[in-house]
Amino acid sequence: MKVIDTVARMMTFSRMVRKEGKTIGLVPTMGYLHEGHLSLVKAAKISNDIVVMSIFVNPIQFGPKEDYNNYPRDLGRDEELARSAGVDVTFYPSAKDIYPEGYATYVNVEGLAKGLCGKSRPGHFRGVTTVVAKLFGIVKPDAAYFGQKDAQQAAVIKKMAEDLNMDIDIRVLPTVREADGLAKSSRNKYLSGAGRRDAAILYQSLLRAQSLIKEGEKDPNKVIKTIKAMIKTKGSSRIDYVSIVDPGNLKDVATIKGPVLVALAVFIGKTRLIDNVVVNALSP
Amino acid sequence: MKVIDTVARMMTFSRMVRKEGKTIGLVPTMGYLHEGHLSLVKAAKISNDIVVMSIFVNPIQFGPKEDYNNYPRDLGRDEELARSAGVDVTFYPSAKDIYPEGYATYVNVEGLAKGLCGKSRPGHFRGVTTVVAKLFGIVKPDAAYFGQKDAQQAAVIKKMAEDLNMDIDIRVLPTVREADGLAKSSRNKYLSGAGRRDAAILYQSLLRAQSLIKEGEKDPNKVIKTIKAMIKTKGSSRIDYVSIVDPGNLKDVATIKGPVLVALAVFIGKTRLIDNVVVNALSP
Repeated sequence: MKVIDTVARMMTFSRMVRKEGKTIGLVPTMGYLHEGHLSLVKAAKISNDIVVMSIFVNPIQFGPKEDYNNYPRDLGRDEELARSAGVDVTFYPSAKDIYPEGYATYVNVEGLAKGLCGKSRPGHFRGVTTVVAKLFGIVKPDAAYFGQKDAQQAAVIKKMAEDLNMDIDIRVLPTVREADGLAKSSRNKYLSGAGRRDAAILYQSLLRAQSLIKEGEKDPNKVIKTIKAMIKTKGSSRIDYVSIVDPGNLKDVATIKGPVLVALAVFIGKTRLIDNVVVNALSP
Repeated sequence: MKVIDTVARMMTFSRMVRKEGKTIGLVPTMGYLHEGHLSLVKAAKISNDIVVMSIFVNPIQFGPKEDYNNYPRDLGRDEELARSAGVDVTFYPSAKDIYPEGYATYVNVEGLAKGLCGKSRPGHFRGVTTVVAKLFGIVKPDAAYFGQKDAQQAAVIKKMAEDLNMDIDIRVLPTVREADGLAKSSRNKYLSGAGRRDAAILYQSLLRAQSLIKEGEKDPNKVIKTIKAMIKTKGSSRIDYVSIVDPGNLKDVATIKGPVLVALAVFIGKTRLIDNVVVNALSP
């Protein structure tokens, strides 16, 4: 496995690979890898000649009071995991190389980036779309891989790639979970013993929502109320949002019909976790 | 010469050309071609295997009170000129194909897009960078060609390409002028007999500014005053701005030293014209 740590060298490498007629699959990450990331690598390996994993904790997608400085980092461990998973190139640029002095260009997806996490994290998705647009320019992938856990991120990036005619296949893969259902996330590291146990309620409440909808519940407010009540039984929890939206435009639905995205963000202690399920409501 | 009128077909064509290892030069235009555009084609032909000219009057770079609807269009004439100049592909998409319903993604270069024309045309450069980012995605050029007449546009696009690591060579070519010095522009068509004669004052005033600076004038305000006085002698003129800025960051200079961009926008009757010169001040 090659480790490339400058933008210039990555661009030269990608240009060469593309000239040789080979395809590139990109797995963008912020590092501190878990099985969710590795499932993306696995998918990328099936469809591409070369798999590039970027590891970059992107400062501009963190708010001023968020965990940019404390975000877990462990390059040695990440390299080992990436190598074992069969990554061909780990791209590990510095923040100064990605955002040199005088950096001024931002990509914004209006609408989709506003609700859900965009509400409590203003500017977050602008940071995500900007860095992903840059990674697409640098790595020149044919396809890029994202996890369904970050459903809104995936939707926003899909929209950006489509709107800007980036000609890159955006693939979204299922959330990988712990044995008790907690979605794998680098931030799970922050959880203490009790918090870690409490965190399982997120997916449990989503499964309960899924059952209600499958049983015919059409009123999103009733489902949301059930989810919230379940989460509130855990003392360490504080709800940011619980929403039931159209998976296409991410807008709240008035009645549950067809596929809906049930999404939530919950603080467990100081750790903000997100999770979601897509549920296909029965036709009436 | 091929004429391609859908985004999908253009993308397929470009993908194929790039796969064959051929290079693509893009000349983005809004049509109603003049010798300025054709000089860009000439330059593109020298350095690329395939020259694509896009012809697209971009609605999102016009303000609500601007001339989008009246902007001159003549595809038959443009095709003839493009063919004679040696363009390989004319790409002529519809507005609906470029901005389908629900379109939501915008690229913005902060700072550079604010002053000069950005002041009287808010949102203009956001429209320009967005459509150019899309054209880069669709056409996948190795190099793209722009005219120095639109100096701020060229600077903003250069910055975008650099910031977003687009890996596209942005080439800026000298302004082509009429016999009396008026910069070639599709909008010159709007000028009536007297207005057309008055319009020559723009370049004359820029040449006067150039002389003053070459002779050692260091005070931008004195130079600007001279330019404005010359333009005001023409009854049909109304000045939007006259500025002397750093060609890199487009900020007003306090003292003239090194290279400066002397730029202006002037209404002649109802027609807004722009022009500029880059002058290298003598070292003190």
